[in-house]
Amino acid sequence: MNNDKEYLNNLRHSCAHLVAAAVIDLYPGAQNAIGPAIEDGFYQDFDLGDHVISEDDLPRIEEKMKKILESWDSMNEEIVTPEKAKEVFHWNQYKREIVDDILARDEQVKLQTSGSFIDLCRGGHVKKPKEELKYFKLLSVAGAYWKGNEKNKMLTRIYGTAFESKDELDKHLTLLEEAKKRDHRKLGRDLDLFYFSDLVGRGLPLFTPKGTVLREELNAFSQGLRQKRGFQKVWIPHITKNDLYKTSGHWDKFGDELFLVKSQETNDELVMKPMNCPHHQQIYASRPRSYKDLPIKYLETTTIYRDEKAGELLGLSRVRSVTQDDSHIFSTPEQISDIFQMLIEISKEFYQALDMKFRVRLSYRDPHEPDKYLGDPKLWESAQEIIQKIAQQNKLEYYEAPGEAAFYGPKIDFMILDALGREWQIATAQLDFVQPSRFSLKYTDKDGVEKIPVMIHYALVGSLERFLAVYIEHTAGNFPLWLAPIQVAVLPVSDKINDVARKMFELFNEADIRVELDTEAKTLPAKIREWTLKKVPYMCIIGHKEAEKGDSISVRTRDGKDLGLQNIYEFIKQLKQDIGKKI
Amino acid sequence: MNNDKEYLNNLRHSCAHLVAAAVIDLYPGAQNAIGPAIEDGFYQDFDLGDHVISEDDLPRIEEKMKKILESWDSMNEEIVTPEKAKEVFHWNQYKREIVDDILARDEQVKLQTSGSFIDLCRGGHVKKPKEELKYFKLLSVAGAYWKGNEKNKMLTRIYGTAFESKDELDKHLTLLEEAKKRDHRKLGRDLDLFYFSDLVGRGLPLFTPKGTVLREELNAFSQGLRQKRGFQKVWIPHITKNDLYKTSGHWDKFGDELFLVKSQETNDELVMKPMNCPHHQQIYASRPRSYKDLPIKYLETTTIYRDEKAGELLGLSRVRSVTQDDSHIFSTPEQISDIFQMLIEISKEFYQALDMKFRVRLSYRDPHEPDKYLGDPKLWESAQEIIQKIAQQNKLEYYEAPGEAAFYGPKIDFMILDALGREWQIATAQLDFVQPSRFSLKYTDKDGVEKIPVMIHYALVGSLERFLAVYIEHTAGNFPLWLAPIQVAVLPVSDKINDVARKMFELFNEADIRVELDTEAKTLPAKIREWTLKKVPYMCIIGHKEAEKGDSISVRTRDGKDLGLQNIYEFIKQLKQDIGKKI
Repeated sequence: MNNDKEYLNNLRHSCAHLVAAAVIDLYPGAQNAIGPAIEDGFYQDFDLGDHVISEDDLPRIEEKMKKILESWDSMNEEIVTPEKAKEVFHWNQYKREIVDDILARDEQVKLQTSGSFIDLCRGGHVKKPKEELKYFKLLSVAGAYWKGNEKNKMLTRIYGTAFESKDELDKHLTLLEEAKKRDHRKLGRDLDLFYFSDLVGRGLPLFTPKGTVLREELNAFSQGLRQKRGFQKVWIPHITKNDLYKTSGHWDKFGDELFLVKSQETNDELVMKPMNCPHHQQIYASRPRSYKDLPIKYLETTTIYRDEKAGELLGLSRVRSVTQDDSHIFSTPEQISDIFQMLIEISKEFYQALDMKFRVRLSYRDPHEPDKYLGDPKLWESAQEIIQKIAQQNKLEYYEAPGEAAFYGPKIDFMILDALGREWQIATAQLDFVQPSRFSLKYTDKDGVEKIPVMIHYALVGSLERFLAVYIEHTAGNFPLWLAPIQVAVLPVSDKINDVARKMFELFNEADIRVELDTEAKTLPAKIREWTLKKVPYMCIIGHKEAEKGDSISVRTRDGKDLGLQNIYEFIKQLKQDIGKKI
Repeated sequence: MNNDKEYLNNLRHSCAHLVAAAVIDLYPGAQNAIGPAIEDGFYQDFDLGDHVISEDDLPRIEEKMKKILESWDSMNEEIVTPEKAKEVFHWNQYKREIVDDILARDEQVKLQTSGSFIDLCRGGHVKKPKEELKYFKLLSVAGAYWKGNEKNKMLTRIYGTAFESKDELDKHLTLLEEAKKRDHRKLGRDLDLFYFSDLVGRGLPLFTPKGTVLREELNAFSQGLRQKRGFQKVWIPHITKNDLYKTSGHWDKFGDELFLVKSQETNDELVMKPMNCPHHQQIYASRPRSYKDLPIKYLETTTIYRDEKAGELLGLSRVRSVTQDDSHIFSTPEQISDIFQMLIEISKEFYQALDMKFRVRLSYRDPHEPDKYLGDPKLWESAQEIIQKIAQQNKLEYYEAPGEAAFYGPKIDFMILDALGREWQIATAQLDFVQPSRFSLKYTDKDGVEKIPVMIHYALVGSLERFLAVYIEHTAGNFPLWLAPIQVAVLPVSDKINDVARKMFELFNEADIRVELDTEAKTLPAKIREWTLKKVPYMCIIGHKEAEKGDSISVRTRDGKDLGLQNIYEFIKQLKQDIGKKI
């Protein structure tokens, strides 16, 4: 079996052609646009004219695909003239526009024929679709702008996937089913964590009190790990004159992603910050520094703004307001090794507490293209060696990725594995040999000579919003006690016990345990069901027996375990200990 | 003696004319622009042509003023035609422009003559300047744009003041002298608290680690006082579609002060938020609410942005990035009284801890202009009664200010008195009968009917930046122990003792006391002078005697008190207690 990534991509790309053939057959006048393979599957875009497709139509399309597949013994490519291609696609304005794009790039125009279906395509298919393309599934329907630009027409996009074996397909579909249940957008609504308002706008989440607890607790943990290692908090505004980015070199790089800010009262040309490093460097630059001051470690959790395309926004995974638990370390070259060792220790402590496994990617420069990178090559070599040595010394699972470094320095990326086996790049520790010199940062060394410090960018949570998207799905909303927005629900079994229950509620409250009291006129089973759905770690039931004793509760967990009768003071003591240990 | 405010304004305005006469006499070709009385004095603007005036020239100008004054027995007003006025001011383009402005407002053009000096002026003078205008002083020189618009020419502004008696003038000059020493911009630089970078821009401070300690500690105190009373943190982004403000009604009101945000990727019309209430109301609106949920108390410290005129920006007193410790309370009308009682308690606790006296201003609607205010008049009446009753019950020093309310509800303003006797409006608790209905906010009442909640805006520190400006000057940088960016400096008397000193330093560090260790090769007196200038509350001196004992330090305070030999563990224990008590 050929299970390499390229073959899977070809299989899926072939399947996209097959969907196109089926839809054009079923919906007269439909025009297919692009249909690439993507991570875990493929999509195919259509202008359906007056037709509308919903997910209910997918089985019918799949049937048609299977029928058409019978005649797809092979896929044949042919290079043609642009004129010929436009003639073939006289019925399809999108394909004709793509022909023009191909010409603009000075590439060849290729047609691809399977059975009676002809498509414009740059290649990458399986040879015998009829035999190879057995295990596919259409998954969903969405809207997507032609070329991703919301000024263009909205097309219909059909998502699907294909695998080499039934087993792999089934496994993937089960995973998708589980992911759907854990979808952070659904859980965010059900658990009242965050909210998108039409008046505020796309990609701009509002966090409710419960969602804000998650943000605050995660952030406090991340900051605490760094503060006890000498990081100092600083504060910067969210806007700046664009001069700052013209100096840093980001002005050209970020281009369209920058939100421009118009001052009506002054001539200042302002932008919202898309990163924090240039501001932090201005704080470093605000007074003379000596080697004795280094390393200087700034820390700030602050929100950056990036003008993402509307079509790319997705729940908390991709937002326009990105809150980073950022830090920037200024050091001598000799200190790099100790600093990376410290950053590895912080990261390990953080992800272990969150019960998330990780491996690291060592992102080096591409040795075949040395001109793509700035900074002293010797510094690069030694820094890459340091990073690798640190990964080995700490017995990290790592892999090397030449060509993955930014142009200004090598980095360590922390790749997190979630409960569904999906991998996410979260934290990163990034060397920077370039920016400090652009901002003329200096320190006076032992020998009295002025030198340029090295800068290290480091974020632990990375984007708080994106991390929450991952973490909510990782835990399916069953947050550990220390993070749970509500840690305990107090459930009296009847009205007569409400007063006793309120006293117990106050005991939790005074102990700074996040608690709610449920005095609704409902049966106990109804209350238990409700608070289980709210995924509250502990339910404290106060029945007549408990109320009589005065200091007793019956404790039940959200996963249905009955912990029996407990002394409330002992229980609170236990909870406080667990919270302290980040359990 | 006539010491009312109007007379003082007339006196100062007359003095502005006198400066104009003197400068025009001394600097041929100089043109005087406007010269109004302001809080505590006056200013007079000039276009000096090629001349330049510095503060060194002020004594010479004062001399000339005194000479001219001899001929100013009276000030005479005369109404003239615009043509006549323009003829008189053929030499002064600014006065001619003002004549046009007066015409546009359909007002009378008046000339005012004293001795041989004629000025254009709308009136407000003393009758006999020669007798009345004896106690004046020119204070400083600055640049100021014509009409405050940076697109216009930069003029020269001379500031001065005048009083009715020598005693009052001397007292004021002493106060200015003291204020100058305490100027928060100077202390901010000397104590390394904040920094303005030319690349980032005007009105956009960067806070260093030390300044950030002040922000964080003040904010934590303010938030803690509210969290223990059931306020819940929320989080909102710093931008929004302008639709939010079109709905709230702020779009027209804020006009020029709004920073507009241009999205290059979408058609969204965005702005930076100039306040937080509309966003917080969207969180309230995100799900149905019952009377049982009220009051709902949201709390968030977040930065708003206002596009102030460049000429109005001043240190931290007036910035473009304003961080507010904001809160919004949603309640039933019946809950207003309890909520205000709670807010008074919070405010008292806060300002008492900071050793700042305050009185409150009860800002009511103007009973003569009921049409200027929105909302049910009965609700206004009862709310104003509640506010007054609360002020009385709490034995607050208060005064009533009809006409000072916003159009949407009455408020309590907390007016803080600083160490120099200056009064500042800081915290405010503001009722709002209007916005909740604009956003269609609802709650289901006991009777099952949907009703509109009342909203209360409340900030304690107000603007963190402005508060710090006031507070730095109030304390002259001698922050109390719990707030001091560095709480303790450990000073070994010689190199040989550095190791012992480092161990002591670590003891403070482990106790979470903000400490620095000074191992520079300097004499002890030099070290003491340096750390006294840095205004660090306690200096712990480790001499040979202390080093031998191993657990002893000699303690000295920043105001020069010698606390003698102390056991370090006892001393740390005492510090922790004092910090806990906000001493």
